[in-house]
Amino acid sequence: MEGQHGHGTHYERDKDGILERLRKVEGQVRGIQRMVEEDRYCVDILTQVAAVRAALDKVGLMLLEGHTRGCVVRAIRENHGDAAIQELMDVVQKFIK
Amino acid sequence: MEGQHGHGTHYERDKDGILERLRKVEGQVRGIQRMVEEDRYCVDILTQVAAVRAALDKVGLMLLEGHTRGCVVRAIRENHGDAAIQELMDVVQKFIK
Amino acid sequence: MEGQHGHGTHYERDKDGILERLRKVEGQVRGIQRMVEEDRYCVDILTQVAAVRAALDKVGLMLLEGHTRGCVVRAIRENHGDAAIQELMDVVQKFIK
Amino acid sequence: MEGQHGHGTHYERDKDGILERLRKVEGQVRGIQRMVEEDRYCVDILTQVAAVRAALDKVGLMLLEGHTRGCVVRAIRENHGDAAIQELMDVVQKFIK
Repeated sequence: MEGQHGHGTHYERDKDGILERLRKVEGQVRGIQRMVEEDRYCVDILTQVAAVRAALDKVGLMLLEGHTRGCVVRAIRENHGDAAIQELMDVVQKFIK
Repeated sequence: MEGQHGHGTHYERDKDGILERLRKVEGQVRGIQRMVEEDRYCVDILTQVAAVRAALDKVGLMLLEGHTRGCVVRAIRENHGDAAIQELMDVVQKFIK
Repeated sequence: MEGQHGHGTHYERDKDGILERLRKVEGQVRGIQRMVEEDRYCVDILTQVAAVRAALDKVGLMLLEGHTRGCVVRAIRENHGDAAIQELMDVVQKFIK
Repeated sequence: MEGQHGHGTHYERDKDGILERLRKVEGQVRGIQRMVEEDRYCVDILTQVAAVRAALDKVGLMLLEGHTRGCVVRAIRENHGDAAIQELMDVVQKFIK
């Protein structure tokens, strides 16, 4: 049972993993800047951009899972799941588009 | 500095714009790290992640356009466009997936 | 006919809407075939393909919402939400990629 | 050298392959309708929707490649490549979003 903590956080379990991935993404973005500054071959740069995008998607999925397991489950148990699910779907839609 | 080498670069026109966008993306990624550290609401974090993803897609499109107008056009004019187009399609595919 | 089985279905509310959209998608796919047969301009065909893709994403989101409001909520209430959420995340991932 | 035929088609080489894939997509969409009518498990339906989406992306890429190898190359050779590339980028963007 959760619900015991006041609000808790929704991604506690993965917080370190998420931060580590975000720091890696930050480093990759700086790496892309360097590639652009050094006039590296565009296709290599584009490949890196696609890699960062995939890394961000992975972070997004981790956050989504933490949010669902935390906030959404709690909301459902406390009988106000409708709004939580609506919000969840809205944010999923932002990622699918 | 570009311009120096004969073949030019393929995204010259937009190089500054691309670098500026990449620096903004870097700042956004750091902002997301802060949001995670401060246990901000996951949906707000996810919204930011989706925004960074969209910003990266825009950078990707700018690079793609520069590459097409530069390298691909040159390759076609020099009659070795086939390989250049194959490579272009491969990189587009990475973005569509 | 649904309604007959005890557990109901998870997208009851939207079943007609979903079927209607799928029939429209089917018609659009046939329309694209015709465009290809008639050698219509590729960019017009590609625009139609992108439209069908967006229509399918909408159907996917409707199914996802119905599934979450139905099966996932039920699983959480019956204390076996973990597997349901894992499965939900796996299917969301298929759409994000 | 192409350019010899009046307008030609831009995806001639793959026309049959594209039509075959589109007919398969049409059949898959009908299959999804049946799954919905029979109240099949949503996750199975969603998996099929994601498969159709991937099949459409493949068709889109084939059309894109045919268009680039045909119309875009021709436009570049005839020195009006700028508009053709702009149009190409616009349609790529529709797929990336």
